[in-house]
Amino acid sequence: MTESIEQAQSTDAALRSRAKAVIPGGMYGHQNARHLPAEFPQFFVRGEGSRIWDADGNEYVDLMCSYGPIVLGHRHPRVEAAAAAQLARADCQNGPAPCIVELAELLVERVEHADWALFAKNGTDATTTCVMAARAGTGRNKVLVAEGAYHGAAPWCTPRPNGTTPEDRAHLVHYTYNDLPSVEAAIDAVGDDLAAIVVSPFKHDAGSDQELVDVEFARGLRRICDEQDAALILDDVRCGWRLAHGGSWEPIGVDPDLSAWSKAMANGYPISAVLGNDRFRTGANRLFVTGSFWFAAVAMAAAIETIRTHRDEEAVDRMERAGRLLRQGLDSQAASHGVGIRQTGPVQMPELSFEDDAGFDKARLFSATTVRHGAYVHPWHNWFLSAAHSERDIDRALQATEAGFAAVRKTFGD
Amino acid sequence: MTESIEQAQSTDAALRSRAKAVIPGGMYGHQNARHLPAEFPQFFVRGEGSRIWDADGNEYVDLMCSYGPIVLGHRHPRVEAAAAAQLARADCQNGPAPCIVELAELLVERVEHADWALFAKNGTDATTTCVMAARAGTGRNKVLVAEGAYHGAAPWCTPRPNGTTPEDRAHLVHYTYNDLPSVEAAIDAVGDDLAAIVVSPFKHDAGSDQELVDVEFARGLRRICDEQDAALILDDVRCGWRLAHGGSWEPIGVDPDLSAWSKAMANGYPISAVLGNDRFRTGANRLFVTGSFWFAAVAMAAAIETIRTHRDEEAVDRMERAGRLLRQGLDSQAASHGVGIRQTGPVQMPELSFEDDAGFDKARLFSATTVRHGAYVHPWHNWFLSAAHSERDIDRALQATEAGFAAVRKTFGD
Repeated sequence: MTESIEQAQSTDAALRSRAKAVIPGGMYGHQNARHLPAEFPQFFVRGEGSRIWDADGNEYVDLMCSYGPIVLGHRHPRVEAAAAAQLARADCQNGPAPCIVELAELLVERVEHADWALFAKNGTDATTTCVMAARAGTGRNKVLVAEGAYHGAAPWCTPRPNGTTPEDRAHLVHYTYNDLPSVEAAIDAVGDDLAAIVVSPFKHDAGSDQELVDVEFARGLRRICDEQDAALILDDVRCGWRLAHGGSWEPIGVDPDLSAWSKAMANGYPISAVLGNDRFRTGANRLFVTGSFWFAAVAMAAAIETIRTHRDEEAVDRMERAGRLLRQGLDSQAASHGVGIRQTGPVQMPELSFEDDAGFDKARLFSATTVRHGAYVHPWHNWFLSAAHSERDIDRALQATEAGFAAVRKTFGD
Repeated sequence: MTESIEQAQSTDAALRSRAKAVIPGGMYGHQNARHLPAEFPQFFVRGEGSRIWDADGNEYVDLMCSYGPIVLGHRHPRVEAAAAAQLARADCQNGPAPCIVELAELLVERVEHADWALFAKNGTDATTTCVMAARAGTGRNKVLVAEGAYHGAAPWCTPRPNGTTPEDRAHLVHYTYNDLPSVEAAIDAVGDDLAAIVVSPFKHDAGSDQELVDVEFARGLRRICDEQDAALILDDVRCGWRLAHGGSWEPIGVDPDLSAWSKAMANGYPISAVLGNDRFRTGANRLFVTGSFWFAAVAMAAAIETIRTHRDEEAVDRMERAGRLLRQGLDSQAASHGVGIRQTGPVQMPELSFEDDAGFDKARLFSATTVRHGAYVHPWHNWFLSAAHSERDIDRALQATEAGFAAVRKTFGD
């Protein structure tokens, strides 16, 4: 009896039960599925192009792309070949491989504001190093960040302050995204101690509708940083290589002094980068920041090939095309069911929210049903498209979301 | 004329010159060769077992092992096969692969004090998360660290404070390694606000002689943490898997509450870990710590196979055997040249220093000559042996160090 019940248990459930014994709370961080509806798998075993498979063999159209890193599709042949060729020679050595120079040169060539690069592992390493370079370059302390923005999970920025001290945020001052007067008020408060303003390419806080940047706001930040002789830091960790081939504010013509990169830059291989202009070269050079794997060659070889392929395959155009199809499809499905939704932000980083859904009940039901029908989405975090998403993939995903909207209509009415 | 001069320039020099344009100062962090003698290469292209090759094709017996990560030798076949098998399926996904559970179970089985594990990328992530878990678990702020100890390169711990603020270290209080009265004095200073004591398995500060832990000191820290209801954090990032198969203080029978791991745990693949006991499980579970690549499967598969191979091949015994041969050889070479040296710390993590060498002039000449003769060593940082070092490798390395001692004797006299 017990045995047959256990046999009926899914592989995912069995793994979760083992994980609960040896991992705090069963899982940690942003990939903890405990707070997601029960239909969401915790464990994954395979990825190929636009598709992923969970530990029970269920296949999904992947609309999260590993929360961003997969920008060309899982296991892109060009990237895998470049990584394998480097791995056959060396990865982690007593010094970097020559490809660190190639990668730095490539980034300086492709990203407008960049005169130099340095590499780390986490997006948090990159944002933290940007702040340190700004402080070392200006000799000042205060850093402006937007209320509610995510810039990583170190003590100075993690959104859940457990385990941190008030001093970790002693020099942070908050402004409101797209609200220049709030920036000016913050500037007044910090006096002559402004080291940097940190900003995301657009407002992409989890659990909120997204908001594109107001070009005048971006220009205003640039002007204020120039006036104050402070650093404008663009946190391009989440958006980098999805909005543009280059910095995410290049289309609007606003150059940061420093920018933080990670996620998509090596199509899933672990790397992050700080790019900076000559004004902050000395500041960066005065830091001691390092890590045992920051010089490892395989992720750098993967990054070089990802960036080259990204342009060769016109990845941004492809993601926009797929994103428009998805947005149109979702809009017309919602309309046909009479379900009120909002879609915000760039089409290649979709955010779908429901009218009258403060507690995310509709979003949870929609995403759970969509997942069960074969498209992996998220209830309150933006989704990510990759250049591997074809029209066929979007059609397949829309079959799943159709079931999601039907479920919302059935439970909550139209 | 110019052309022939350029042709005569080494590949390493050409790469350094390109790097200088696009990387602040030409390189950053602990693998910056700028402060090493000119004979040290900056760039490496290949590693195999105990040998490495620089960008100009020079071969070395590798006595630094990538500053620690390579514990079984470069490109160990079992580790490479396990990593390749995982990579063929998936690496960075929307959730971890099943091997995260296997790895956590294996660590809990092999490391005495551990009831749970969580994984990150950098050693600094692990030490920082230990401190956060201690603070979240105790509700207190103060952390004792040994004067001069290295626990990472985040603002709270980087040894060069440029780019940090005084508040980043507001709650650190210092003690002297192996000096229990200094710990008791620090405890008096923090009152009832002690969250944790952080300690390395032995004193391995760069630029100093190493010092093994006094067992009574270790027991004293354990007793104080018990009395104060604080966490004892063992920073096993550098020593882990070199001193023992399991925690580095298991041979002396002192269990920490939390331990930080990285470097050697996956034989060069990028991963770090926090291990903890049940007392700090809730503290760890209350944190939000995460990273885009913290759930990636390839480094976890590599870690599992590294740890299994480590025991199967009796890696600690092998490293000790090679380390004893090296230490004996260096001692007798130094004696025969009449050069006064000190060798300190465990034999598998050698530290060689010279009498009357406060400015490291002898160490620089010795290491430069040794490098030129085919063994890669460091002038002021401890070296690392791996299980791939055979008697023949040590013989070969000693040929190079013989030249190093001869040079020291010639320049500085005996």
